[in-house]
This record gives sequence, structure tokens and C-alpha cells, in this order.
Amino acid sequence: MTAGVSENRDLGYPIVVAPSVRKALATFIAERGDRFTVLCDANVLAYARQLTRGLRGRIALIPVRLGERRKRLSTVEEVLRALVHSGADRHSLVVGIGGGVAADLFGFVASIYMRGVPYAHVATSLVAMVDAAIGGKTGVDLPEGKNLAGTFSNPVAVFAHIDALATLPYRNLREGLAEMLKHAIIEGGELFESLEELAPHAFWRWPWESVVADSLKVKTMIVADDRLEHGARETLNLGHTFGHALERASGYRVSHGAGVSIGLRVAGLLALRTGRFSRAEHLRVLTLLTLLKLPVCTRRSPASIFAAMFADKKKREGRLRFVVPRAIGDVEYGVEASDAAVKAVFKRVARLPGGAEFR
Amino acid sequence: MTAGVSENRDLGYPIVVAPSVRKALATFIAERGDRFTVLCDANVLAYARQLTRGLRGRIALIPVRLGERRKRLSTVEEVLRALVHSGADRHSLVVGIGGGVAADLFGFVASIYMRGVPYAHVATSLVAMVDAAIGGKTGVDLPEGKNLAGTFSNPVAVFAHIDALATLPYRNLREGLAEMLKHAIIEGGELFESLEELAPHAFWRWPWESVVADSLKVKTMIVADDRLEHGARETLNLGHTFGHALERASGYRVSHGAGVSIGLRVAGLLALRTGRFSRAEHLRVLTLLTLLKLPVCTRRSPASIFAAMFADKKKREGRLRFVVPRAIGDVEYGVEASDAAVKAVFKRVARLPGGAEFR
Repeated sequence: MTAGVSENRDLGYPIVVAPSVRKALATFIAERGDRFTVLCDANVLAYARQLTRGLRGRIALIPVRLGERRKRLSTVEEVLRALVHSGADRHSLVVGIGGGVAADLFGFVASIYMRGVPYAHVATSLVAMVDAAIGGKTGVDLPEGKNLAGTFSNPVAVFAHIDALATLPYRNLREGLAEMLKHAIIEGGELFESLEELAPHAFWRWPWESVVADSLKVKTMIVADDRLEHGARETLNLGHTFGHALERASGYRVSHGAGVSIGLRVAGLLALRTGRFSRAEHLRVLTLLTLLKLPVCTRRSPASIFAAMFADKKKREGRLRFVVPRAIGDVEYGVEASDAAVKAVFKRVARLPGGAEFR
Repeated sequence: MTAGVSENRDLGYPIVVAPSVRKALATFIAERGDRFTVLCDANVLAYARQLTRGLRGRIALIPVRLGERRKRLSTVEEVLRALVHSGADRHSLVVGIGGGVAADLFGFVASIYMRGVPYAHVATSLVAMVDAAIGGKTGVDLPEGKNLAGTFSNPVAVFAHIDALATLPYRNLREGLAEMLKHAIIEGGELFESLEELAPHAFWRWPWESVVADSLKVKTMIVADDRLEHGARETLNLGHTFGHALERASGYRVSHGAGVSIGLRVAGLLALRTGRFSRAEHLRVLTLLTLLKLPVCTRRSPASIFAAMFADKKKREGRLRFVVPRAIGDVEYGVEASDAAVKAVFKRVARLPGGAEFR
């Protein structure tokens, strides 16, 4: 294995992390001997060309205009039709290249094209590398809410193309940083400490190969334990109950990463109120959020976020349940909280110390 | 078990056949204790009301306008959105009521709604009872071809509501009769003989409970052997390679059942040419086709059907393969045939003895 290249097999398929994944991708495809069609986010067409040009068996390279607003069934239909026209059959491999939306949408398309064809994802954004492309959840949004249509479907391989991170604006990096911090709180120990050590340094100096490999490992371990989200996988929703509600209350103008960031603070505050979490550890989380330039408060009204929470698909039988930390490295799920406690905490994150709001 | 009621468990979930399935459905739902939403083909709304009114846990009854032309992703989106509005969550049961298109489309919807919710189908047409609702294949069409988007997803139960058959026009019954004859050729023995005995009698005199139960048993046995269609399940494509090509060549004006009927004759003729099948057995099949009033020839040009065959998703590596009978009760798959042999056989079924064509 080349320096800087790692392979995780916790989920039964390879997740390769490398500065450039061209070689690993070429080897993987050559070994399978499949013909393959490449789908890519139109924004990373240059990468897609570079990574797949000249590889044996390539049928077609199809750029798809994506973005949160395009994560819809109508786009799924476009891509399915393009696959037919490319000549992909039920034995072809589909290779998807892009970030989180690409992982969700292309993975979904592959899982229903001719009732399912093998799928490999090349992740070019941080959130895709540490979260979206890992764990086999695919899907698209409906006008009524996010990820309401999808499948559980494992890829045959995932490749994290680290070089792509250097080209991302901070706004885009942040989506992944929020999930990385979540993983660090769940795992604790060295993973959290290494993030504390890196946080003061400029992102371009971070050793991203190992940072990504260590972070996604938290997700693969949990998913391997719990394939269909009936238990432990719930811990991965840390920060997400609030996050989804905030996104929803804002009409999705607040990004997922921003929602989760504030949600991580909310989870800590809820844990503090119920005597589960120490103030010192809560402050370590808050410090990291700040150093990573992640938002910790919102201008949206607590009442609107509270209302949106009840419309979320994660609610069951009308009671609100949260994932909260008992300590850094020890997260509890299914914790009920009274409406009063939840509202009080929402008011805390609504106070704005500065003036500008992160979106 | 009440007289006339049977239950097949070959696939791990109950397939109940009964004159009316109201009681069986009520018991099933009461035992699961689920809240449930009912989706029905708008054409069988009266049945759907009658079968589910007053059942505990019913959230909503949603009639959906269906039909072959509506078996599309846009309809899937409509139904997904209606499910959200009905309040169905990831723990709700979805009950679908209708024929083959309903089984394919509602089953697909349930398999992707919130990444999959439990699904039960109440079959009201013969083709749904003996074929479409059995075996876990769901899906919709693309403008490029049939069933190009879908999933493999097992229902939690299937109910064959025999009373509904009495209300069907022959045109609709025929779709199921073609698949029943296919099952009889695959299985042979008593199943084929009983069909020969029944065929001269009016349909309303047939003992449909046992006819349906015996026919669907052929499919459940084969599917149980071969869940993901890599082998034995191929035999179920008897008559379908030709049938799909004919449907396609006609722009889907020829129905699936009509295509399969002629396809069963084509398979017999191909088997005859290669010395696999006896003329006597071929004539038994042809006689049954005729007695069941199923079409045995088409006005479409052999050349157009031949061309359409190459566009079908069942082709692999450019060679044509067929499923053909070696005897009644012994079917072989993956049989290659020369282009010349195929074209010669297509010419045979293109000769029209009468003048009118079945559609």
C-alpha cells in the first residue's frame, strides 16, 4: 500500500482513502472486469475526466447538474434515462463522482436501475468522504421533506479523493467538519484530542488522508454493528434532530452542516440540563466548534424550530427523543426531553453574540 | 382454515387465496398491530372501501389513477407525496389494492418510501394473483422501456381476492391466463392436465380458488429456489423474450399477455426446430392457447419484432437466448438460437389464418 493510502473493509467492501484515487480505481475496475458508466456532478467534470480517461471498459461519462434543489425524483429520472442511452445493462458497473448529493442520488439511481446494478462512489467533498458515501443510505428529497425516498443499498467500493478537498471553499468543507466533530464526540479519546490539536491550524496543513480515514472509521464501525438503524446507528443522529428542524424551519436556507453544528451544541446543553454531561466537556465541544469556524447559534425563532421538529420523520409517537452526550466518547440515544427543557435550550442558541448569522 | 381459503408460505410470507380476503386481511393487520395506509387503483375503489372500512389502524385510503401509461416515476412521486400527507411514517404498513400495475408500482413506492416500509398487496386481477404480486419484483417503466426502474423487495403478505375476478372483462383475464399457461408448461403433469380439462368450460365455472393457488405455487417454488434471478428463475421468462419484443415493436399497443401467448407458441416452434420438443406436445400447447382464446399470431412484421428484440434488456453480449420447452414439464433456459432460425419462426407466427388480430 502506497504511503498516504488506506483501505477500510469494516463494511465488507473497500473504502479507499488516497491523495489521488486514480490508481486504486483503475485496479478495482480492472479486477472486476466490468464495463462501466461514469456519472459525475457537472461541477467536478474535470476530475471525472482525469480519473477515468483511458480506463478499460468505460462506456460513457455523463455529467449531471446537481445541487440540493436538484436532489429530486425528476433528476433521478433524467439520470436513469441517460444510463439507458449510454448502453448500461444490468451487469454494468456505475461509478458516481461527486459530493454528498451525488453520493445520495447516484447511489439511489444505481440501486433502482434495472432493479439494481453495482455502484462505486468517488467522493470529492469532505461530507461525502466521512458521511454521505458511507453506510449504504441513498435517497432524494420530496417537496414535503428531505430524504423521503430512497433505499438501503451498499456500494461495491468507495474512494475518497483527498486532492479534491484543496479546491473546496470553506462553506463546502464545513458540511464535513460538522460530521467529523460529531464522530469525534461519539468516539472520544484520541480522535477528539487530535481534532483539538489540529483545530488551531490552517486547514491546508491538516494531514487529511489520516483525518478522513480516522473519522469515517467511526461511522463504519457503528454501521457494521447495526445495518438497518434499529439501535446503535441512532447515535449517528447526534445533533441531527435539532439540525433537521432548523434546516426545515429556514426553508433549507440553513445548510445541513450548519444545522448539525448548532445541533451538537444543543445536544450538549440538553445533556447539561439533565445532569448527564459536565460543563468542562461541554466547553471543549463549544471551543472546537468555534475554532473550526462552525456556527453555534441561529437567528431563527425558537418557536419555528420547535414547530418544525414535529414535522420531522425521526419523531415517533409524538414524543421528542434526542441523542445526547454523557461524556466525550459516550453518547446515549432515545433520551426523552420535556417540551419545556427543549424550548429553554432553543432559546440559548437563539441568542446572538455577534450580529451576523452563519447560514 | 375456511373452505376455499388457502395459504402458501414458500417465500416466507403468507400468500392467502380466498373468495373474499377481508377476514384474512383483518386478522393479519390486527396481529401486526400496525397503523396502515391503503393505496388502491382508482378502478377498484369500491373493493378497497369494502375490504378496509372499519379496520383498526387505517390512516387513509388513497385512490390512484393507474393504467400502463401511468406506470411511471411521475406517478411514483405523486403516491410518495400522498403517503407523506396521509401521515404514514417509517413504521406504518402500506396496503396496496389492485392488479399487476398496482402491485408493481405500489410495491416500488413502499420499498423506497422513507427507505422502505412494510407492504402488503391485495390482488384483484388474475395476473397480479399468479404473477405480478408474487416474487418481490417491483418497478415502473421509463420512456425507453418497461420495468427499467425498480427494486427487489418482498411484501409482508399477499392476498388474492378471488371474487374480484368475476367482474373482470376477458381482456383483463387474458393477461393472467397467459402466465398461467406458462406455469402449466413449466410444471407439466397434473397442472397442465387440469388446465386442459377446464379449458373448454366457461370461465365463470372454473374453481378459481384452487386454480389460482396451484398456478402461483409454480412461481413461489421457483422464486424460493432462486431469489435474485441468476438461474432457475430464468425459466419464468418462457415466452417473454418474444413477448417483450412484440410489445415493444407495437409501441405497447399489444398487451403483455398477448405477447406472452404468442411467445409461448414461438418458444415451442424454436424447440421443435432444434429437435427438443415433440410435435404432439407442441399441439397440446397450441390447442390450449386456442381454447383459452389467447392469440397465436400477429400482424406485426417479423423484421420489426426481430429489431425490437435487440433493444430488450434481457439480451446479453449481443447473442439471443431463449427459454424453450424440452417437454411439457421440462423447460430449458439460456438456449442460443441462430438469427436465421429465429427469423423463420417469427415468419410462422406472422401468418394470419383469420384476419383480425388480437391486441
